[in-house]
Amino acid sequence: MPKNLVVGQPIHRVDAIEKVTGRAIYGDDLRFSNLLCGKALRSPYAHAKILNINVAKAQKLSGVKAIVTGKDIPVLGGEALKDYPFIALDKVRYVGEPVVAVAAIDEDIALEALGLIEVEYEELPALLDPLKAMEPNAPLIHEKLHTYEHIPVVKPIENSNICHHLQFVKGNIDQAFDESDLLFEDTFTTQMVQHGAIEPHMAVAQVDPGGRITVWVTNDAPHRLRKDLAAALGIPLTKVRVVLPPYMGGGFGAKGGLKVETLCIALATKTDDRPVKMVLTREEVFTSSLVRHPSIVQLKTGVKNDGIIWAREATVIYDTGAYAEKGPTVCQQGCVAAAGPYKISHVKVDGYCVYTNKPIAGAYRGYGHPQVAWAHESQMDIIAHKLGIDPMAIRLKNAVEEGDISPTGQQVLHSVGLKECIEKIAQNVDWNKPNKRNRGKGIACGYKNTKTPSGSSAIVKVSQDGSVELLTSTVEIGQGAKTILSQMVAQELGAPLQSITVAASDTDTTPYDASTTSSRSTFHMGNAVRKAAEDTREQLFEIASEILDVGTEDLRAEKGEIYSKDNPGLRLSFAEVIKKQYGAGLDIIGKGSYYPLIEERDGGMWSAPSIFWMYGADYVEVEVDPETGQVKILRAIGAHDVGKAINPITCEGQIEGGIVHGIGPALCEEMMVGERGDVLNPSFADYKMPTAPDIPEVTPLIVEAAHREGPWGAKGIGEMTTVPIAPAIANAIYDAIGVRFKNLPITPDKILSALRKKKLDG
Amino acid sequence: MPKNLVVGQPIHRVDAIEKVTGRAIYGDDLRFSNLLCGKALRSPYAHAKILNINVAKAQKLSGVKAIVTGKDIPVLGGEALKDYPFIALDKVRYVGEPVVAVAAIDEDIALEALGLIEVEYEELPALLDPLKAMEPNAPLIHEKLHTYEHIPVVKPIENSNICHHLQFVKGNIDQAFDESDLLFEDTFTTQMVQHGAIEPHMAVAQVDPGGRITVWVTNDAPHRLRKDLAAALGIPLTKVRVVLPPYMGGGFGAKGGLKVETLCIALATKTDDRPVKMVLTREEVFTSSLVRHPSIVQLKTGVKNDGIIWAREATVIYDTGAYAEKGPTVCQQGCVAAAGPYKISHVKVDGYCVYTNKPIAGAYRGYGHPQVAWAHESQMDIIAHKLGIDPMAIRLKNAVEEGDISPTGQQVLHSVGLKECIEKIAQNVDWNKPNKRNRGKGIACGYKNTKTPSGSSAIVKVSQDGSVELLTSTVEIGQGAKTILSQMVAQELGAPLQSITVAASDTDTTPYDASTTSSRSTFHMGNAVRKAAEDTREQLFEIASEILDVGTEDLRAEKGEIYSKDNPGLRLSFAEVIKKQYGAGLDIIGKGSYYPLIEERDGGMWSAPSIFWMYGADYVEVEVDPETGQVKILRAIGAHDVGKAINPITCEGQIEGGIVHGIGPALCEEMMVGERGDVLNPSFADYKMPTAPDIPEVTPLIVEAAHREGPWGAKGIGEMTTVPIAPAIANAIYDAIGVRFKNLPITPDKILSALRKKKLDG
Repeated sequence: MPKNLVVGQPIHRVDAIEKVTGRAIYGDDLRFSNLLCGKALRSPYAHAKILNINVAKAQKLSGVKAIVTGKDIPVLGGEALKDYPFIALDKVRYVGEPVVAVAAIDEDIALEALGLIEVEYEELPALLDPLKAMEPNAPLIHEKLHTYEHIPVVKPIENSNICHHLQFVKGNIDQAFDESDLLFEDTFTTQMVQHGAIEPHMAVAQVDPGGRITVWVTNDAPHRLRKDLAAALGIPLTKVRVVLPPYMGGGFGAKGGLKVETLCIALATKTDDRPVKMVLTREEVFTSSLVRHPSIVQLKTGVKNDGIIWAREATVIYDTGAYAEKGPTVCQQGCVAAAGPYKISHVKVDGYCVYTNKPIAGAYRGYGHPQVAWAHESQMDIIAHKLGIDPMAIRLKNAVEEGDISPTGQQVLHSVGLKECIEKIAQNVDWNKPNKRNRGKGIACGYKNTKTPSGSSAIVKVSQDGSVELLTSTVEIGQGAKTILSQMVAQELGAPLQSITVAASDTDTTPYDASTTSSRSTFHMGNAVRKAAEDTREQLFEIASEILDVGTEDLRAEKGEIYSKDNPGLRLSFAEVIKKQYGAGLDIIGKGSYYPLIEERDGGMWSAPSIFWMYGADYVEVEVDPETGQVKILRAIGAHDVGKAINPITCEGQIEGGIVHGIGPALCEEMMVGERGDVLNPSFADYKMPTAPDIPEVTPLIVEAAHREGPWGAKGIGEMTTVPIAPAIANAIYDAIGVRFKNLPITPDKILSALRKKKLDG
Repeated sequence: MPKNLVVGQPIHRVDAIEKVTGRAIYGDDLRFSNLLCGKALRSPYAHAKILNINVAKAQKLSGVKAIVTGKDIPVLGGEALKDYPFIALDKVRYVGEPVVAVAAIDEDIALEALGLIEVEYEELPALLDPLKAMEPNAPLIHEKLHTYEHIPVVKPIENSNICHHLQFVKGNIDQAFDESDLLFEDTFTTQMVQHGAIEPHMAVAQVDPGGRITVWVTNDAPHRLRKDLAAALGIPLTKVRVVLPPYMGGGFGAKGGLKVETLCIALATKTDDRPVKMVLTREEVFTSSLVRHPSIVQLKTGVKNDGIIWAREATVIYDTGAYAEKGPTVCQQGCVAAAGPYKISHVKVDGYCVYTNKPIAGAYRGYGHPQVAWAHESQMDIIAHKLGIDPMAIRLKNAVEEGDISPTGQQVLHSVGLKECIEKIAQNVDWNKPNKRNRGKGIACGYKNTKTPSGSSAIVKVSQDGSVELLTSTVEIGQGAKTILSQMVAQELGAPLQSITVAASDTDTTPYDASTTSSRSTFHMGNAVRKAAEDTREQLFEIASEILDVGTEDLRAEKGEIYSKDNPGLRLSFAEVIKKQYGAGLDIIGKGSYYPLIEERDGGMWSAPSIFWMYGADYVEVEVDPETGQVKILRAIGAHDVGKAINPITCEGQIEGGIVHGIGPALCEEMMVGERGDVLNPSFADYKMPTAPDIPEVTPLIVEAAHREGPWGAKGIGEMTTVPIAPAIANAIYDAIGVRFKNLPITPDKILSALRKKKLDG
């Protein structure tokens, strides 16, 4: 592919100018007339029965157009497990759960109406600790858990708060522990954190008089949302239309599933065709959208004296809050990686997804993997130090390679760039150089699967002047999908990048795509787009072949022209080709679909085999201030195996962004939940995320272990880059001050307290 | 196809309930926020130079957001010939031509602003008579005619007002006249008429800061409009997006081309992203949108004593008004049929499309054919009466049949149901029964081509619950396209009609279609839709074949299920088929395109060969009131060859509607143009269209001469039904009172005056 090189090139984002000039349209920029403002009255209790709701006074307020409660729309939704009421039904399960929604002609009236609504509750004991929630006689948060519909892979435990339990077993774990020279048992925890997307959740819903629902919404999966809504409401897919704004201001997992759209729809069924808009306040985003699962990971690891990891048993508890949301599949996906990216012969993993009366946890960049990587990468250093083996060396010694069986045993691994990631870091740092005082270096590895199988389709049209349109339901959520997919079209079709436009996602017109999640778009949609572009190109070649009298196999396309490879003077532009054949006008339409053919094991999607795995390693250098407990990250390197960098700039951006995104949960971010289950710091003033001055120098390193089925060998990258950063930091802190932290975040007060303890212990 | 019969069934419109309950959304129902109101200041002169435009006062009016003149957008558009300024440039050419457009925050301010604008004109001599306009030294309406771009088939005559001249010659006309027993020379004229769609023209335009134009518009051809706009503005197709409202309130030809959208776009380039809406007033629709070409048709016909039409020479003048619009192609298409649907060995046709300083003429149901049919069908009766041959018999004797060379010589005819139409009428009336006093019977024939070649594409998706979506750019303009195309999908795919939805047309997402004109949708889009549905079905069969272990050739699809024809118990629903293969989700997408392969003669599209011809005959019985001159139509029958009635109800509706639509121009409708070129009756109060009490009993008769290339044999019907009605009425009036009228409309005063003259002559 020496010419027309678009794929693999460091091309600036196609939407860069639109974004930096402020012209890009986001959800809240969409304009509607006759719009009503929706607001929700939310539960002040973490767990309570709803005894009575009196909306009479609010009803009378002038300007109020609709008031809805759970009774108006008594349905349950949810992707993995249908437990999620559009509005609370008979009880509330977390502080912030919507109980009544109001649509009014403006926000002031809507808020005034909320103040006039009286709700009578009977408080129930709130379960905030997942371990207590798992106890046999714990009060039940979902009494009807056993009646909920769910996808096959999800295994709820009846009469419990466990909405999913899984177990993976490879080898003989008990025997393997006996065969080990040393055993390590540690428990690691992660806290509740926020995604922190700048753009809050918003939706506008309109229900036409025929009952067809249209939702304009910030959601990372328009077709999945359509499916979830139609399933919950018991209507055909074609009765729901999901339209996305051209751009979304970040999601990181929080913009999927049923969020604010359910309330908008509930209201819109009662507004006589008037659209209802809701935009969550930042406080609502904190309390009532989504958080990352707090987790407890117990690791028991048997090792040989030479550093070989021989056996590992993991018990992983994901605290999923009041509703399952994507918790069961986060648990499933995370647990597949609980043993770490290492050749381990004997593995046992027990995963639990547990209800508590807290904010709902679900997808968050990494999808359960940051939690298990925190554990296995911290323990890896504990093992290394105990055995006196270099932390980098022990990882290289155990790291999985091409052709290995996956650690939890589900598949043979292909496209495995882990060792190269570690080696590339080694080449870029002076690993063995002694540290200055209070400084340390740390490394950690990770790997991440993608939901499998899942499908994507695309359509590529060439219009009569040669301009090209891509129809895809992949969402431009800030990750650069428009750029990557445009490059693929340009490369495969042989068209100038500038000639390509991407239509906005709309379930009525842009073809099916499972979701813009799971780092799947480059691979899955990339394959679909490539096939669609190929289909289009082949049709153009068929026509050009006749006109130029050159066999299709001898034709090439480049920059919007088709030419004979043997006689490049023989050439026609796309426009000329179309004009010759269809002088009166016709576009060339190509389509492509991709659905990985991977052996189905128990339960299909979300079971173990992943069509690809991403691998990576992060390195950090820190300096700990023993007076303040502050950790300063001096330098960070992320080396990540992307299969093939379709665009090195956007790959590097993902590495930089992922590392920065991981620093917060490692060092400062924590949603504090009070005794009554209320979030104590639901604002960016009180919830500390890293800001520009906290960002270290980040060096992104790209590794390309081409995937045989990826477009041009590409895999994904978006989530992987954030997975190993927290343990890398913890390992560097240990290297700096000799203290091991097992509970995130590693805040200055924890460091000071540990240093004091260490001093006392002497 | 004994089962799952959808095609050919008298199914009620799929949009019937939406329409009768008032829920259907039309252009003016679309809602926008921040919307500006656009209004145009129009020329009071039929022909004048623009010396100066002073907008200073209007500019200062609070609430005025944009004022544009031709200088702001000095471009020329047009489909056949680019002579059309978006706003008048250096001169005006008809009364009502836009000279300045204003966008303001409301209509009152916009109108007030128009009143503050001063335009200085230098009046030029107005050419209102096409014959005078054709004179060698006539003043030129378009001085630069020879510089205008045009499609190849259009032949403007330099330094004249003739924007298109054509000539067809078959045989040897002079010799043939010598060989004839009798010669007939008559001149027939038709008047200027209005389309009379209930919904006026409207558009909303928005120009985003990147310069991309979006237009929501009542236009019968979104992709053609995109092409015309992009061509005029010199930008890529992808820089223009045309979105149609779900429904349009009639068009009959008037809703195509560049109308109100040009003014909206001109304004929207200056409103900083705010959308601008314009809705034409009824007066503007009359004066400044489109009219049917007034025409002069001179026919010289040589016949043999036995009634054989031996030679015919036609000179046809279409008065196209101030701009060519579709005039040249109306002329081209109409003239191909100027000899009538008869086996005539020697034919010569000269067609002229002539500029005058009058409202712009263009497409009108029938596209030039009603004018020529008025002539040849009136003369046919003159000939019959002169020769003493029955008017029905002389038509049957000369009527074209399968395999004949077309009258003007361009092609061999296929799918010719003309004789059957006449015979079917004969079977339904008592043709030879003597008339009561002042009553008469008349018959007339017609035929109509379709623009050839032209392309259509469609996409058919089956979603995961088996529901089906059709993506098509065919416009539901009241003709029933949604119903017909849904039936085709249902039939070809084997899906329940209720499972099918049709997405709204949008050039960003619905695939290319040339236009919803020329009675082409059932045939062209029908073929595309059928192929797309077949593609979809084949993909479903491929999957089902593996699951059911039945060869694809032995599978059948019906009502959303696929089954083994030999073992019908072996069956799966579409949803099951998709679920089995793509459990995690994928839609099945099929695509289809149709572009007729017909030999190109000089100039391609709009040259002579038509992929299909429609044939038909209309019959009427009239009673003439000798005291008032009123003509009452007692009964009408339309027999029309549709190839195959996809839906007999909608075909019958087209016949009934077409006949009613033709009665007005025959008897009462006439746009009166004053000496200064102004329309004297630009309102429904003064322009008389037939209303409910004027509608006779109409009997629709369907003839099906299947077309080998039509979907299920179907051709078109929409335009044909209106073609022969005027001469049928004139022939019946002659039968009733013995007076021959050659100039439309046949108003009561003309009848009274003729009866008086007849009495005097008597």
